[in-house]
Amino acid sequence: MNPPGLDNLLTCLRFPSVSTDSLRRDDTRACAEWLLGKVREMGLTGELRETPGHPVLLAKNKHIAGRRTVLLYGHYDVQPAEPLNEWKSPAFEPTIRDGRIYCRGATDNKGQLMAHMQGLAETLEKHADLPVNLIILFEGEEEIGSPNLKPFLEKYRDELKCDMVAISDTGMVAPGVGTFTYGLRGIACAQAWVRGPTIDLHSGIFGGAVANPVTAVARLTATLHHADGKVAVEGFYDGVRDIADWERQAWAALGDGDAEMLELTGSPALFGEPGYTERERRWARPTVEVNGIGGGYQGEGSKTVIGREAFVKLSCRLVPDQNPDVILKKVEAHLRAHVPPGVRLEFVPGHTGMPYIMDPHSPLGTAAQRALRQVFGENVALIREGGSIPIVQAFKDVLGVDTLLLGLALPDCQAHAPNENFPIENFVAGVRLNQALLAELA
Amino acid sequence: MNPPGLDNLLTCLRFPSVSTDSLRRDDTRACAEWLLGKVREMGLTGELRETPGHPVLLAKNKHIAGRRTVLLYGHYDVQPAEPLNEWKSPAFEPTIRDGRIYCRGATDNKGQLMAHMQGLAETLEKHADLPVNLIILFEGEEEIGSPNLKPFLEKYRDELKCDMVAISDTGMVAPGVGTFTYGLRGIACAQAWVRGPTIDLHSGIFGGAVANPVTAVARLTATLHHADGKVAVEGFYDGVRDIADWERQAWAALGDGDAEMLELTGSPALFGEPGYTERERRWARPTVEVNGIGGGYQGEGSKTVIGREAFVKLSCRLVPDQNPDVILKKVEAHLRAHVPPGVRLEFVPGHTGMPYIMDPHSPLGTAAQRALRQVFGENVALIREGGSIPIVQAFKDVLGVDTLLLGLALPDCQAHAPNENFPIENFVAGVRLNQALLAELA
Repeated sequence: MNPPGLDNLLTCLRFPSVSTDSLRRDDTRACAEWLLGKVREMGLTGELRETPGHPVLLAKNKHIAGRRTVLLYGHYDVQPAEPLNEWKSPAFEPTIRDGRIYCRGATDNKGQLMAHMQGLAETLEKHADLPVNLIILFEGEEEIGSPNLKPFLEKYRDELKCDMVAISDTGMVAPGVGTFTYGLRGIACAQAWVRGPTIDLHSGIFGGAVANPVTAVARLTATLHHADGKVAVEGFYDGVRDIADWERQAWAALGDGDAEMLELTGSPALFGEPGYTERERRWARPTVEVNGIGGGYQGEGSKTVIGREAFVKLSCRLVPDQNPDVILKKVEAHLRAHVPPGVRLEFVPGHTGMPYIMDPHSPLGTAAQRALRQVFGENVALIREGGSIPIVQAFKDVLGVDTLLLGLALPDCQAHAPNENFPIENFVAGVRLNQALLAELA
Repeated sequence: MNPPGLDNLLTCLRFPSVSTDSLRRDDTRACAEWLLGKVREMGLTGELRETPGHPVLLAKNKHIAGRRTVLLYGHYDVQPAEPLNEWKSPAFEPTIRDGRIYCRGATDNKGQLMAHMQGLAETLEKHADLPVNLIILFEGEEEIGSPNLKPFLEKYRDELKCDMVAISDTGMVAPGVGTFTYGLRGIACAQAWVRGPTIDLHSGIFGGAVANPVTAVARLTATLHHADGKVAVEGFYDGVRDIADWERQAWAALGDGDAEMLELTGSPALFGEPGYTERERRWARPTVEVNGIGGGYQGEGSKTVIGREAFVKLSCRLVPDQNPDVILKKVEAHLRAHVPPGVRLEFVPGHTGMPYIMDPHSPLGTAAQRALRQVFGENVALIREGGSIPIVQAFKDVLGVDTLLLGLALPDCQAHAPNENFPIENFVAGVRLNQALLAELA
């Protein structure tokens, strides 16, 4: 017997709402339209507002003067599912195994979003109202950096006026441990193309005469880090805030992160910037990651060519007080300064998002912690996270409010990876968390 | 009005005989069977001999004691046609534009092979015999390094006994200039895999904790060369023969190679080992080329993952007296010594071929030059080439004979690349060269 609301989640998961893929444009909109139907079913007024990209679902209960206004954010778009051959069940057909739902988007973000939807539906069914003035804002471009959301917030600033934002799109440190995330890393993406000859060349006939763009892209990429893992881009660490002593202690008290990280990743060893624990490196230190590299022959066997071009896809994860636009300029300057001879460089800046931090000991922070205790028990973990939700900073900038990040994802939920999954018990806890949170914030 | 034999070439080109692609196995055999029909039509006895891979076409005229025996080698397999979207006409539909035939395999090697076929057919039609004892040996695995040909030569050594081998699978220095190639580079291929986590990871959540295999493959690849282009693999240049003074002079006399190379490749600049001209680097100096690199997200837009694995495909071009097996061991040792921390390395050796050199001033060499003069005029270029025909060394080792390399490809015929082509006038010249060569060798 499925818990209430689970069937709705399974239906939501079947939409392949991959926002980065132009071929999935209609599927992405279809998911938004289905969600609109659901919010209307539960008695809220709602509509899809157009953006230059995917639409935003906006919905409200009847707002009553004097009540707190809470904006609940979520995103209905998902990451691409590739590589498809590594999925044990189809990427867009939710499959339940051992109490977990396997599907692209199960944890990021549909499982968490639909838990809130079910919490609201139950409250509305029981009380015909909510304890707060609610604004639902579900967007469809989170996985591509929410390029249209900040303009959207600016355009509808008055309509979106609220006292706080609540989001479940982050993680729990362990099963059953309520987790309050008070900081996120920012992001700055870019792609570089290295080009040489105008055509692919026979590497026997031409090899030795001209620079090989594939060799060059590797050499260029290798300049981004020192051998010890520290980023080699000049000025990259400028303005990085030191980790507070209480943070170091709180994070160390969470247990042996190294062992957990080795088990979760299956990597042969941990590796990263010297002088920091793995949690400190992931939550409070910036990185430059190579998300993809490609050039030359990609098929089976060998093909003796000099490829005419090659690319590298980069994303920098940033911490307070780095600025992503400044970082992209520094990365571009680094690449231009280090491009090997005999090839041309094209630098294509990508999406950016500011890092975010709030005070977990503020009144808002302590209210969130009380809600977590009601659902998960006394022990609440205070953490930052390594991922980015760029719009959290946008809420701060445009609406002037802080965001409560009350995540329901476990470390092995495999967000962004094949076999992404979400435990059914976390869905059920999420339903209760929605109810406890709105009561505490009221 | 097409010249005699051209229609046969067009038919031959329509077979997508890509030897490296297991899906093209039947197409590759079909090409061999079609060629068998053609040699039987012209009155030779022939058959397909099986190998563990693609079959060898073997054919003979009636051998008469006291005549010279010439083995004519060619290959009916071709390179993969990818990237298909860069072809101006379909890769396996021969299309004639401005006097050239555009098709995969047009120059490498079907155009040259079919010119010899037409030369033989005409001589046999006119005289009902050839001036020499002929052995035709056309294989289907040249583009994958002829893995089964040396065992084949050993198995049929007695049957294949000959005085010399003739091959047209090399280039001409310029249109209308007879070119005798007396040296080839050898080859040693390999692929390396770099692996870290067991699954693709979210680069926000996990970035900073573990080594990124895509970053690592770039860093590892970057260790293969010094910044000036010299190969950094320890002992790589051991045993490399110096370029003779007469060679340096002969090659310099061929004209401004730099300008030609810039025009042919479209590269923004030449680049390679310091201290050598571009011809010296391509013909008489060894290289390590990166033929392909790949890992992480390859699609449109960005995807913030840490890919679990990445690969690099390498080929070394070798010169006398380097040994490809020794080189592969040195490359493997280099990669193992330089693999970055936190990832695992898998090294997969690929196909190899010895470098080759003969004396162009020997009696055999001068006979070949006389044949070239009959077809192309007095000025014959003596060159080496950067490509590899591994079986040339096998003919030397197993059959004990030298090979005459009388190529018909022009520098802009784009062998191995999109829009490969072959001038019809070179086909016609090849028909005459076959006739002149057999007469001179008789």
